[in-house]
Amino acid sequence: MQNRGLLKELIQSFCCLPGVGPKSAQRMAFHLLQRNRQGGEQLSRILAQALQEIAYCAECRTLTETKLCEVCANSQRDTGLLCVVESPADSWIIDQAIGFKGKYFILHGRLSPLDGIGPDQLGIDALEQRLQAGAISEIILATNSTVEGQATAHFIAEIAGKHNIRATRIAYGIPMGGELEFIDSSTLSHAFNGRREI
Amino acid sequence: MQNRGLLKELIQSFCCLPGVGPKSAQRMAFHLLQRNRQGGEQLSRILAQALQEIAYCAECRTLTETKLCEVCANSQRDTGLLCVVESPADSWIIDQAIGFKGKYFILHGRLSPLDGIGPDQLGIDALEQRLQAGAISEIILATNSTVEGQATAHFIAEIAGKHNIRATRIAYGIPMGGELEFIDSSTLSHAFNGRREI
Ligand SMILES: [Zn+2]
Ligand SMILES: [Zn+2]
Repeated sequence: MQNRGLLKELIQSFCCLPGVGPKSAQRMAFHLLQRNRQGGEQLSRILAQALQEIAYCAECRTLTETKLCEVCANSQRDTGLLCVVESPADSWIIDQAIGFKGKYFILHGRLSPLDGIGPDQLGIDALEQRLQAGAISEIILATNSTVEGQATAHFIAEIAGKHNIRATRIAYGIPMGGELEFIDSSTLSHAFNGRREI
Repeated sequence: MQNRGLLKELIQSFCCLPGVGPKSAQRMAFHLLQRNRQGGEQLSRILAQALQEIAYCAECRTLTETKLCEVCANSQRDTGLLCVVESPADSWIIDQAIGFKGKYFILHGRLSPLDGIGPDQLGIDALEQRLQAGAISEIILATNSTVEGQATAHFIAEIAGKHNIRATRIAYGIPMGGELEFIDSSTLSHAFNGRREI
């Protein structure tokens, strides 16, 4: 077998991407080297810069290269409505699909004791500080409809209850076991409008 | 909609990879930023280095970071047998699947006049110089079994004929219209053993 050196290393490096096996990784490496070196250089440069500069928003924990993200820095947003989601992608899709004008809190996951993911990993302390601050009148729990997502929503609803803040759960139309990220905007819109107390 | 700045740029950069749409690109960006920053840094670094250092082998035109690739630099290889393939991946798979011990020539494509790919783009000049040098007794044409791959094989066979060099075509067992890269090793082995004059 041929010793492929650097090319082999490149192919292995692409395997760190989700959904990319050795065959796809090989196609990616060849494609960039043979047909799109400029695109490859840009990917390398932007990736290094993103890893260097992108961190969590100090307020909502979304990924951003500024101290506060665009949403948190926007004074036109309704600070009384707080939507809690599992990932930044979920907040993007809610903004795009239904034009939600409140604010967000990103958990970066869901309660999953077996994987060692508890309240600390989800930033529940920071969330509780925001509830304590007093400006929030409703917390909308938009975690996924998986068992763990539901458990996470109930856990946060209890905390909201302690602070006498109304907690609602998006509910209508989302299929059980489905991941929020893959729901069409009409279903998501229904789910938002049909939210109820938990 | 939220202005995503650098994160948006990163997602767009991943879209330059083959088979990666906006949704997969988003998952890749989030995965690296949230769960595998070390893998991301390595990918960025190796990709930059590969684009800088990897070029074509001076003899066979495969991708390599040295002037001559491992195969061409290997004096144990049979210089009398030259296998012509469309891509470096094809030469790798032939080495792995059947332990071929001759040398290779990589076309980086196939004749395709509509796409502006003619003999110049495939390095036919360099190939003819190797045939002229006189050491080659057989040229094995292992281009894909597509219409263009077949036409390319016949084109090269004619050149070999001018130099009185035996040209064979791998043939047995490869389904018509199939891409060599996706053939199992047993079929490929049959095709090699059943090669015939063209
Ligand atoms: Zn924020
Ligand atoms: Zn070579």
